[in-house]
Amino acid sequence: MAEKKAVKEITSMEEDFAQWYTDVVVKAELTGYTSVKGFMVLKPAGYAIWELIQKQLDAKFKETGVENVYLPLLIPEGLLQKEKDHVEGFAPEVAWVTHGGLNQLQERLCVRPTSETLFCDFYQKDIQSYRDLPKVYNQWCSVVRWEKETRPFLRSREFLWQEGHTAHATAEEAEERTVQMLNVYADFCENVLAIPVVKGQKTDKEKFAGAVSTYTIEALMHDGKALQSGTSHNFGDGFAKAFGVQFTDKDNTLKHVHQTSWGVTTRLIGAVIMVHGDDNGLKLPPRIAPTQVCIVPIMQKKEGVLDKAFELKEKLGKVARVKVDDTDKSPGFKFAECEMRGIPVRVEVGPRDIENNQAVLVRRDTAEKITVSLDEIESKVSELLETIQKNMLVAAREHRDSHTYKAENWEEFKDVIANKPGFVKAMWCGDVECENKIKEETTATSRCMPFEQEEISDKCVCCGKPAKKMVYWGKAY
Amino acid sequence: MAEKKAVKEITSMEEDFAQWYTDVVVKAELTGYTSVKGFMVLKPAGYAIWELIQKQLDAKFKETGVENVYLPLLIPEGLLQKEKDHVEGFAPEVAWVTHGGLNQLQERLCVRPTSETLFCDFYQKDIQSYRDLPKVYNQWCSVVRWEKETRPFLRSREFLWQEGHTAHATAEEAEERTVQMLNVYADFCENVLAIPVVKGQKTDKEKFAGAVSTYTIEALMHDGKALQSGTSHNFGDGFAKAFGVQFTDKDNTLKHVHQTSWGVTTRLIGAVIMVHGDDNGLKLPPRIAPTQVCIVPIMQKKEGVLDKAFELKEKLGKVARVKVDDTDKSPGFKFAECEMRGIPVRVEVGPRDIENNQAVLVRRDTAEKITVSLDEIESKVSELLETIQKNMLVAAREHRDSHTYKAENWEEFKDVIANKPGFVKAMWCGDVECENKIKEETTATSRCMPFEQEEISDKCVCCGKPAKKMVYWGKAY
Repeated sequence: MAEKKAVKEITSMEEDFAQWYTDVVVKAELTGYTSVKGFMVLKPAGYAIWELIQKQLDAKFKETGVENVYLPLLIPEGLLQKEKDHVEGFAPEVAWVTHGGLNQLQERLCVRPTSETLFCDFYQKDIQSYRDLPKVYNQWCSVVRWEKETRPFLRSREFLWQEGHTAHATAEEAEERTVQMLNVYADFCENVLAIPVVKGQKTDKEKFAGAVSTYTIEALMHDGKALQSGTSHNFGDGFAKAFGVQFTDKDNTLKHVHQTSWGVTTRLIGAVIMVHGDDNGLKLPPRIAPTQVCIVPIMQKKEGVLDKAFELKEKLGKVARVKVDDTDKSPGFKFAECEMRGIPVRVEVGPRDIENNQAVLVRRDTAEKITVSLDEIESKVSELLETIQKNMLVAAREHRDSHTYKAENWEEFKDVIANKPGFVKAMWCGDVECENKIKEETTATSRCMPFEQEEISDKCVCCGKPAKKMVYWGKAY
Repeated sequence: MAEKKAVKEITSMEEDFAQWYTDVVVKAELTGYTSVKGFMVLKPAGYAIWELIQKQLDAKFKETGVENVYLPLLIPEGLLQKEKDHVEGFAPEVAWVTHGGLNQLQERLCVRPTSETLFCDFYQKDIQSYRDLPKVYNQWCSVVRWEKETRPFLRSREFLWQEGHTAHATAEEAEERTVQMLNVYADFCENVLAIPVVKGQKTDKEKFAGAVSTYTIEALMHDGKALQSGTSHNFGDGFAKAFGVQFTDKDNTLKHVHQTSWGVTTRLIGAVIMVHGDDNGLKLPPRIAPTQVCIVPIMQKKEGVLDKAFELKEKLGKVARVKVDDTDKSPGFKFAECEMRGIPVRVEVGPRDIENNQAVLVRRDTAEKITVSLDEIESKVSELLETIQKNMLVAAREHRDSHTYKAENWEEFKDVIANKPGFVKAMWCGDVECENKIKEETTATSRCMPFEQEEISDKCVCCGKPAKKMVYWGKAY
């Protein structure tokens, strides 16, 4: 078992969660290195997860009428500056192109940190009449933000994402779309990533630069820290006014459109790692596992074993994404590798199994071993993948719920934040000064004002004044 | 028919091919405008074609063992400069990032014009042993090249593409992969885009900066000009030596890897427009048509007509990508729009048709009208799409072949180039001076030395010295 140990040499979660995270990302071969500081390399195992996220999310988008487009990578400085709050939010963290070829540019261009300004510029030219509305566009691309501290998937100078940008004739329709897309994200996280999320609204302090309101889904990581996992913004007609995006309505008057934007990023992969992973490595929900089943032949040099393994691959290939590990590594090493890479089901098949017309299925989520007849292995594996998918969501929800606390007053609040990693539900007066004080004294931030409100008390947990909203608070990535 | 005329107001191909091209791109709503000079916007109709290209090509790649990855958008100047020929080829046309956030960078970064240098940097860190080989990686992304003159799809400052980058233990394996991927491209062009191509090798003058050999597929546009449609490069171990990409081989000695790269771009959409289009607009091969069938209800206000149209949509949706045009435009206007957008099959259904349990199918490629029974419309449409796909390739091949000429001597050559737009097959001595002279005096360039050689004469068409290769020459985009 010395070899098994070798692949497993990662820091334990309890000992050092941050180091555990880095170890998993490297040992599961999700990311790689180049000399470009602060930038991420997605290796095949990491990119394949993103492809599965993309494919399933894109299909959901299209069901709601979303169309994909592609807009320029670079934004002229003048365009970025048209909306005041937006430029203040983004200017300090963009990369500037100053030279094209051998010549200095007359106007600097920034590498898009997000594309609201470009979509406005485009819509201003493309929208004339109510007949041109709504525009429900999305693009899959990368964006650049000049972060100082970077961590794979969680914060890097470039990340992959999708950004939806819509334009509507009425405020109601824009609000409806904002909430609709947040629900698409929440359902996707639960059903595909097996991550339960809290849906709610950001406070003014935490909302997106230029938005009237920002909705968010917040997930809880294994270490009790929160991760903002997706956001959906309602811009009202603020951007439309700044960019002059107008249309002639049915009543023949000129009106400004109402806009939204919404996005999720490769950060979701970070969430999957930190919600589901354990000391053996990554644990992937079947729906985003590039390899769902790994067949490990036992005593593979014995006649018939490899043949049987590939026969099983053929069979299981109809219901799952399957690989055979026929390398010359030891079975123990292969088991550890399957675990490290988070493959949901391992199938072990050796001479004795073949004799008995059976194979052993090993679950990554529970380590349970199940002996099945080869006659019904297809249906068993298919069912097992469904079971694992569901079980992982249940486990994640239990962890989240058992790490969600309430605090009625300031002492309780400080105590929970200091000693019990997790979400803290507490009342808030609506004043930014209380938010600031909480952040300064505890490093916790307001994660969201959940759509599902509860009345924990009638006083602000910080200042004791009458409370307006129940807020989820927490330390966050 | 005034309305029909309105949507059709495009310049005729014969009158002004360049203007016709621009008109089609705009009227078919493939691209849009922003204030970012020289950059392209892909609107839904244009991007959906790219999505279908991506999906089908990506599946073909994966069948040959390709894995997708993602590398950084920006390249440090020092990295770009490591391979001498490569930097000379690209430095004059890259965009430079000089500031990140509020600070000037210590080293400039260029927006990737292509990613050979990044892959080398990555492989240098990631490859140690023969066990790590081959690496057969690809990425889908955009690249930036600071072009002076731009045209949608054909030449713009940013374009979408895929770039494959592989590393192998032997020169033979690298050469095999280079040719393999060229064949994937050629098959894709013929079977999916219905565009016949000439496969061959670029001359030294025309090859990629840093390559040992460049293979290309060359297509002929309707106006008789050539379009380089995809390239595959064998780098030998030149890049590996410049970047120190080494591995320990089975014999325990340290060796340099052999590398390849290969790419196709959104330019393919330009090829589809210019090979298949006509004075009524775009003509899309069914396999890349986002909408393959458009149902136009006739007298749609009559009871039962719209119901029948949507019933047909439901039915045909099983075998094709279908839309119903139930807007309040006139049928004539809708017909013209279907044509402009290149939709392969239009289905007309009105009260009389319903009475007779029939519908009329109209082919975009031949304008033929076919009356079919509603009982067998699914199979008829399905067959028709196949027929159109094949017929479009046949038509394109006929056009290409009838515009491919031979020239045995200099007078003939100049005459053909001046008077007969198309490919010219002619012998070449292998000397770059003849290539230069041909370009200067005729503006034609060597497109490729085709794999299928013919002996047209034994003398170079330019200098009369002994010929080494038969070359396809032509004016090119």
